[in-house]
Amino acid sequence: MAGMDIPALQDFLAREFPQVADEIAVETLDGPVATVRLRVSERHLRPGGTLGGPAMFLLADVAAYCAILSRIGPRALTVTTNAGIDFLRKPAAGRDLLCRAEILKLGWTLVVVDTRLFSDGEDTVVARANFTYSIPPAPGLGVS
Amino acid sequence: MAGMDIPALQDFLAREFPQVADEIAVETLDGPVATVRLRVSERHLRPGGTLGGPAMFLLADVAAYCAILSRIGPRALTVTTNAGIDFLRKPAAGRDLLCRAEILKLGWTLVVVDTRLFSDGEDTVVARANFTYSIPPAPGLGVS
Amino acid sequence: MAGMDIPALQDFLAREFPQVADEIAVETLDGPVATVRLRVSERHLRPGGTLGGPAMFLLADVAAYCAILSRIGPRALTVTTNAGIDFLRKPAAGRDLLCRAEILKLGWTLVVVDTRLFSDGEDTVVARANFTYSIPPAPGLGVS
Amino acid sequence: MAGMDIPALQDFLAREFPQVADEIAVETLDGPVATVRLRVSERHLRPGGTLGGPAMFLLADVAAYCAILSRIGPRALTVTTNAGIDFLRKPAAGRDLLCRAEILKLGWTLVVVDTRLFSDGEDTVVARANFTYSIPPAPGLGVS
Repeated sequence: MAGMDIPALQDFLAREFPQVADEIAVETLDGPVATVRLRVSERHLRPGGTLGGPAMFLLADVAAYCAILSRIGPRALTVTTNAGIDFLRKPAAGRDLLCRAEILKLGWTLVVVDTRLFSDGEDTVVARANFTYSIPPAPGLGVS
Repeated sequence: MAGMDIPALQDFLAREFPQVADEIAVETLDGPVATVRLRVSERHLRPGGTLGGPAMFLLADVAAYCAILSRIGPRALTVTTNAGIDFLRKPAAGRDLLCRAEILKLGWTLVVVDTRLFSDGEDTVVARANFTYSIPPAPGLGVS
Repeated sequence: MAGMDIPALQDFLAREFPQVADEIAVETLDGPVATVRLRVSERHLRPGGTLGGPAMFLLADVAAYCAILSRIGPRALTVTTNAGIDFLRKPAAGRDLLCRAEILKLGWTLVVVDTRLFSDGEDTVVARANFTYSIPPAPGLGVS
Repeated sequence: MAGMDIPALQDFLAREFPQVADEIAVETLDGPVATVRLRVSERHLRPGGTLGGPAMFLLADVAAYCAILSRIGPRALTVTTNAGIDFLRKPAAGRDLLCRAEILKLGWTLVVVDTRLFSDGEDTVVARANFTYSIPPAPGLGVS
């Protein structure tokens, strides 16, 4: 099954995640790796200007999802079954957040993706998260 | 240090999480256990009417936070350091989501909370999540 | 498919986990819940007499596996795909460790089990762990 | 505080983990990254020759611990507080297992380490695991 390029992913996000699609930009796709940007705005911030954990979780989940769709094509039924996240440092104030998502396994029914979050322009990891997705069966899909 | 009752928690949420406080209701506090409701509305739903993973993560995080604050009092600096979540089933359509959060360890610097999510009026677990929080030092706080 | 009772489970462990079967005893089976004992011996202990994390991980994994097999019967191919564990307190010195494992979801391809570990005779939770297992397809197996 | 080099780490393992030290070899240390080998032997294998999950967990835990000790020096009291692991593929039969452990955060009280496991001589990731350790206070230790 054909994968998706950046414009196709952006269209897909606009349909499937209308509440957040305008804040999310797919930056690069490179084999099993997708890099996705969260345009940080007031609505993500807690008092004091900190970006909350749930917003970071959302970005990492969407980035992992984009990495998968870029390989297997549009499958809205793909669902998150498990996630783990370590929050390491406060993101830099006033900067967008970037997530690098790497597919570690693309199997017949399960996909595992490893992600790291960074503040735009910085090298230190702000958070680390892993995601497992279950995908509905389709012919010729997976590579173990 | 004194804990917080339901009205105090609700006030605290209104200040600290103004974006979501009107959707979140602390239902019961019972020792190390807090039960918190998410009033499900359009903005949490994906096309097709499914409640998204990040909204469930948010509810569980807030419920765990409320369980802690009910014991140690208002400490806005308490931060999530780690979380893990298993998404088990689709929540029932058109129903609020409830989270039961139980403190498993209230230590000097770390608190671990175990949570389960249910659709209102149903018994089957929709999701399971665990959270670790780091708390800033204060005299007389923790019990190991 | 028929499940397994305690003697059948104990025989299965002796064949599949010969290195540890004599240290592991299935205590009770009750619907989706299995309780399993680790007879703590010198080989599990670190200098100073602490039970190591990997031994606790092993007990929780075996207990979760027993809970599943008690429902679906002997399926040696069932494999752990994901696990998360919080170590909360030192186990009591010189006591066996007990694990209570509860199946939260028994699906067609994935099973999720939640576990808690206790020192024998004590109430406080020593560790919490969650496990996801992938099971090979078979007719009439799962209940979602 | 001074860190530890490979011979010092190997001595430390022999004292602290006498049951496994002869199977574990620290291969390389490079800044925040340690690579550690598990010499796979019969006692790690399940019937059929598969390496069990608990043995992989043990290797990753020890590798993460070595990465930390190489930076902060011998601190036997450092304890694992949380771990998550994804088992992705069967390790190659008859090969040692290697773990690459990278410190993501070395804080005052918490250290977070990300690890990946490989079969010796292969590129595909066999498992991914994350660990959080709590370290007892000491002057001049952490860098956030």
